[in-house]
Amino acid sequence: MDIGSYLSGYVDGEGCFCVSINKSYRHKFGWEIRPSFSVSQNSDRAEVIEIIKQHFACGTIRPDRSDKTLKYEVRSVVELVEKVIPHFEENPLLSGKQRDFELFAQICRMMQQGEQRTKEGIKRILELAFEMNPSGSRKYTKEEIKI
Amino acid sequence: MDIGSYLSGYVDGEGCFCVSINKSYRHKFGWEIRPSFSVSQNSDRAEVIEIIKQHFACGTIRPDRSDKTLKYEVRSVVELVEKVIPHFEENPLLSGKQRDFELFAQICRMMQQGEQRTKEGIKRILELAFEMNPSGSRKYTKEEIKI
Repeated sequence: MDIGSYLSGYVDGEGCFCVSINKSYRHKFGWEIRPSFSVSQNSDRAEVIEIIKQHFACGTIRPDRSDKTLKYEVRSVVELVEKVIPHFEENPLLSGKQRDFELFAQICRMMQQGEQRTKEGIKRILELAFEMNPSGSRKYTKEEIKI
Repeated sequence: MDIGSYLSGYVDGEGCFCVSINKSYRHKFGWEIRPSFSVSQNSDRAEVIEIIKQHFACGTIRPDRSDKTLKYEVRSVVELVEKVIPHFEENPLLSGKQRDFELFAQICRMMQQGEQRTKEGIKRILELAFEMNPSGSRKYTKEEIKI
């Protein structure tokens, strides 16, 4: 039994690599870019969520909006780059979610270098973010986000 | 990358070991017991379902009732016992679903021996089936099934 491969399989089904984009007056160009890695699970079988948290040695577990699920989440860019991303580079996903992961990894590394604080950098990051999860819904369209 | 561990992780999230019980005049005691192993997936990322089918070298993939999902399913008791169950004995699930799997394996092996055709056997199989997926819904209650 190889726990790394197991967790990649689990995450391929149940996990999410997301980059949310929100208006923010505190941020240089008026937009906050927030990458997160999360896994949700019914609380009646929370074992795997606990194993994932231990394995990555970071992140938090909290009840999701609905009462019946628990959500494991890592938002820290440093922890994403140093603890989460290397795992999925060693144990790649087999579904189309791998493409999202690769974009996600690129965005997180750019953010760790502070590239979101340059006009060119934030534009590139937004472009990559809009290539992710194409079937998902976004709060703002590409056209609404002016830098 | 260990594909066996990966698939167990995926199935721990997305798979189902089920034993359905239906009225049937064709069966000796008036009830049909049908074990199945299934994994559902949005059809926009069907890669893992295909890998699972290849790995187990049995089962079928078909669109589920809703148009947007594909379902991989194995219903043959012989294939469950010879191809599916050994995999999960070598690569156990880490969540509470492992308990369902163990009951499922016991039921499938009893059925391969034809135990559902004796009164004592079918009663024991039904008892085990009612211990499975306790949070799920059942068409018939234990009391409705008279043998």
